[in-house]
Amino acid sequence: MDESNPWQTLSSREIYQNPWITVREDAVIRPDGNAGIYGVVSMKNRAVGVVPLHDDGTITLVGQFRYTMNEYSWEIPEGGCPFDEQPLEAARRELLEETGLRAQNWVQLGGEIHLSNSVSDERGTLFLATGLTQGDAAPEGTEELAIRRVPLDRAVEMALAGEITDGLSVLALVLAARLYTGSG
Amino acid sequence: MDESNPWQTLSSREIYQNPWITVREDAVIRPDGNAGIYGVVSMKNRAVGVVPLHDDGTITLVGQFRYTMNEYSWEIPEGGCPFDEQPLEAARRELLEETGLRAQNWVQLGGEIHLSNSVSDERGTLFLATGLTQGDAAPEGTEELAIRRVPLDRAVEMALAGEITDGLSVLALVLAARLYTGSG
Repeated sequence: MDESNPWQTLSSREIYQNPWITVREDAVIRPDGNAGIYGVVSMKNRAVGVVPLHDDGTITLVGQFRYTMNEYSWEIPEGGCPFDEQPLEAARRELLEETGLRAQNWVQLGGEIHLSNSVSDERGTLFLATGLTQGDAAPEGTEELAIRRVPLDRAVEMALAGEITDGLSVLALVLAARLYTGSG
Repeated sequence: MDESNPWQTLSSREIYQNPWITVREDAVIRPDGNAGIYGVVSMKNRAVGVVPLHDDGTITLVGQFRYTMNEYSWEIPEGGCPFDEQPLEAARRELLEETGLRAQNWVQLGGEIHLSNSVSDERGTLFLATGLTQGDAAPEGTEELAIRRVPLDRAVEMALAGEITDGLSVLALVLAARLYTGSG
């Protein structure tokens, strides 16, 4: 099986950057031998997400208005992880900032996820956090977060019914339920 | 619960577009009242993905080199769905183009997924396809696809172990296994 790179990059120019993304356009020779372009969105952070599972079988969801989708969205606590930070450390930080929760036990859910590999290099890592204790939340300025506790199985129903739409959240909830109930 | 939009858009300028994406930068007032910017990547297509499940319990995976990740990737058949096309029609077309498979039975897996809602408006829809018959594949020029059949439960193991990294594929495989085995 030939898994080598069939694309040739002829040139690359940066189009745009802000504190979160860089956009570049490459001139390429495609796998079929024809010339083309490829616009790549590079992320300056990795994504991390946490399913915070309480002893009573409920989880904490955070709600926020997603500017990109122009929609309100209920999600697991998520955030950005700089490439020089460990995903687990970022997950601890984001969980605390967004919900005030600290967790004793952390388990990674699945492997590294590539969120949108046709246009971006975004990578995500998911965790299940248990042994939770409550402190004070301190959201960032871009976030205006609401908090809601729902049973894990109800959150999975919401994910399967399209009431939770965020991809990392849907995946994390199904994986968490799979671990805990053998069904998900 | 206030689910109204706490962001204000002051102005919006297009930065870049190609046949697949548009990038714009908006000047905004953030939820905390401070001025800022938001770079939004808008997709010109919806994503669709299909788990093609054969009568013998195997599924067809397609392999391709993902330019954005600079990595080879085994995935479910996926493609772009223009906004004037139904996701199911796009899924039928992509399955046929990439694998030569036609399916009698189609079931949607979960609801609409937002793949990367911190930076893009990309939407995805997943299907399970059964009752498969084999014809000839006809990949696009940007694709150089390899085909592989593996048992569904093995594909789920690959997804959980990080051997399959594409987010839509990981989610679709876990959802398909959940439907078929009650465990995933």
